[in-house]
Amino acid sequence: MRATIIHAPGDIRVENAPEPKIVAPTDAVIRTVATCVCGSDLWSYRGVLPVTEPQPIGHEYVGIVEEVGADVSSVRPGQFVIGSFVASDNTCPICQAGYHTSCQHAQWVNGAQAQYVRVPLADGTLVATPEQPTEELIPDLLALSDVMGTGWYAAKAAEVKPGSTAVVVGDGAVGLSGVIAAKELGAERIIAMSRHESRQKLALEFGATDIVTERGEEGVARVKELTNGLGADSVLECVGTQQSMHQGLQSARPGGNVGFVGFPHGTQIDGQELFFTHVGLRGGPAPVRAYLPDLIDRVFSGRINPGKVFDLTLSLDEVAEGYKAMDERRAIKALLRP
Amino acid sequence: MRATIIHAPGDIRVENAPEPKIVAPTDAVIRTVATCVCGSDLWSYRGVLPVTEPQPIGHEYVGIVEEVGADVSSVRPGQFVIGSFVASDNTCPICQAGYHTSCQHAQWVNGAQAQYVRVPLADGTLVATPEQPTEELIPDLLALSDVMGTGWYAAKAAEVKPGSTAVVVGDGAVGLSGVIAAKELGAERIIAMSRHESRQKLALEFGATDIVTERGEEGVARVKELTNGLGADSVLECVGTQQSMHQGLQSARPGGNVGFVGFPHGTQIDGQELFFTHVGLRGGPAPVRAYLPDLIDRVFSGRINPGKVFDLTLSLDEVAEGYKAMDERRAIKALLRP
Repeated sequence: MRATIIHAPGDIRVENAPEPKIVAPTDAVIRTVATCVCGSDLWSYRGVLPVTEPQPIGHEYVGIVEEVGADVSSVRPGQFVIGSFVASDNTCPICQAGYHTSCQHAQWVNGAQAQYVRVPLADGTLVATPEQPTEELIPDLLALSDVMGTGWYAAKAAEVKPGSTAVVVGDGAVGLSGVIAAKELGAERIIAMSRHESRQKLALEFGATDIVTERGEEGVARVKELTNGLGADSVLECVGTQQSMHQGLQSARPGGNVGFVGFPHGTQIDGQELFFTHVGLRGGPAPVRAYLPDLIDRVFSGRINPGKVFDLTLSLDEVAEGYKAMDERRAIKALLRP
Repeated sequence: MRATIIHAPGDIRVENAPEPKIVAPTDAVIRTVATCVCGSDLWSYRGVLPVTEPQPIGHEYVGIVEEVGADVSSVRPGQFVIGSFVASDNTCPICQAGYHTSCQHAQWVNGAQAQYVRVPLADGTLVATPEQPTEELIPDLLALSDVMGTGWYAAKAAEVKPGSTAVVVGDGAVGLSGVIAAKELGAERIIAMSRHESRQKLALEFGATDIVTERGEEGVARVKELTNGLGADSVLECVGTQQSMHQGLQSARPGGNVGFVGFPHGTQIDGQELFFTHVGLRGGPAPVRAYLPDLIDRVFSGRINPGKVFDLTLSLDEVAEGYKAMDERRAIKALLRP
C-alpha cells in the first residue's frame, strides 16, 4: 500500500509499505477513505519533536472496515467507521468517566496517512455511521476523528453553558471547531481571537459573534472591554504556548474556566497567577471517542459542518505539499484522499 | 487598644495603638472576642514575604459590632458577627458567581490581632450569628473566618461529591478543615496525608478514613494503591509548595479535580504534566463569605466542630508565643483572646 513516512524534519514521503494485519484479536484494519494532516504532526515536521528514524505518521481517519479480529463484535467489514487518535476500551472506569484518552488500556493510533490503518481495541474505539455517508459528508466526518472532538472537549473543559460568554484563543482547525462547539453548547457570545481574514470569516460562519485581532495584554484588554470589564465565563485555549496560556487565563472572569487543548510544549503555568485568577483549568488530549455518537448525529442531521476547516484537498501522494501548506499557514488543514 | 505589630521577621509585639474609627460610611468597627494566627501570617514571620516597616497583622476575627457607618444596614451594634479576611460587596457579578475574594470592590482586612478591627463593606462582609453564641462555640465560629471556609472552598474547587474519594494534602488547620468539608460534602473515602500523630488523630475524628504518612512519589503510590490504581476523584491541596502541587496532581484520577488553597509562593505548574493528567485545577483565596451562612448553621446545630484545630489558647498579649509555637509546629493553630 501507499503510506506516509517522515524521514526527518521537513522530509515527508509517500512510499510502498506492507499492508497492516490483524495483530491482536481486538484489532480492526480500516481501508481509509480520507485522512489528513494535524497541527500536531507539524511538531515533528518542524523538528520540535525529534525524528530519530523514518516512521509512519498520521492519526486521523475515516474509512471502511476491511477486516476485524476474532474478538471484535461491534463493527464488521464493510461498515463506514470513525475512530479517535487514541484507542480505548470504552469500559474502564476512566472511559466511563468520559476520559477515554486516559483509558487504562489506551494505545495511540499511528500511521493513518496511508491506504490502510490498524486500529487496536476496535470495539471501544470505532463508531460506525448509521449509513454509508454521501461524498459531501466525508470531510465533516473526518473532522470528528480529531479536531472537532478536540474543540468540543475544549468547550466542555471550559464549561461552556447556555447563555454564557466564550473566548476562543487560536484560529487553527481546532480553534474554529471550538467555535462550533461553543455555539452548539449554547454560548450566547463567542469571541474569536484571530488576525487572518479567511479564518475570521469561517469563525463568523461557525457562530462567532466578535472577532478580536489583538494578542497578549492588548487582546486581554479587548476581551475585558467586550465583557463589562469582567472577562469571559469560558476560554478555549487552542494554541498551547506560554503566551496563549497567559492570555487565556487573563481573559477569563474570576471563577471562570479555561479548557486547554493545544499541546503545551515547555509551557509553565505560574501557580500564583492561576491562584489569583480563581480560574478552573483543565486540559489534555481530547477524549474524542466520548463525543463521536453525538457528533456523528449532528453531522448527519446537518447541524454542524466542521469539514469546512479543510481548505486544501490533495491525493495521498501529494501529502508533502499538505504539510508545507500548513507549515506556511497557506492552508488551515489539508485533507488527503488515498 | 492593644494591637499586634510585626516589626521584622520573628519580631512580633503587642503595643498600644489608637482604636480604629469609621472611615467610609460602609465600614463597621468590631470589638474582637477572639482572633488567631494564620499559617499565612508565618510567611512574614519567617521572612519569606518582606516586612519593610512595622505593620499591624492578623485577618481572622469574630466579635461584637461596636459601631457602623451611616450606610450600613445589615448589621448593628451589639450583634455577634463573623467576617472574611477579604471585604466584599456581596452584590457584584463576581460575588454573585460565588467568588467574593475576587469581588470588584475587594479590600483585604488587616490588623485583626487586636482589640478592635475596622471592617470595610460591612454589609457585604459580615454575617451576624442567629443569637449570641455560648463560650464553647467561639473557637468553632472563629474557624469559619478563614480556615474552615478555606477547607470548604478546597473541597468545592476539588468538586467533592457524595460517594466520592478525596485526598487531603496537608495536615495544618486548613487541611484538617478540608477533611471536615469533604465529609460534609459526602465523600465516602477521605485519605488524609499526615505524619504527625496528633494531627492524624484529629483528621480521623473529623472523618478521615485512611491516613497516608508517605510523601512525594511514595505518597502518590500509596494513594493509587488505596484507589484501585486510579487515583482519587478529588484532591484538596492545602500546602502550596512545588512538591505538594505535584503530589496533588498525581494523586487525582484522570479527569479528577484538584482544589488548591495553600498559597503557591514561587510554584510553577508544568503545563505538559497538567495536560496529561486530565485533571481540573482550581485554586485561590477562599471566598469564605459565600459559605458563612451555611457554615454558621452547621456550627450552631453541632454538626461540625472546626474549633478543634485550635490546640493553643493565649491572651492577646502572648501573641508572640503563638507565632513561635506554630512556626515550630508545636501548635496547629493559636487562638488569641483580647
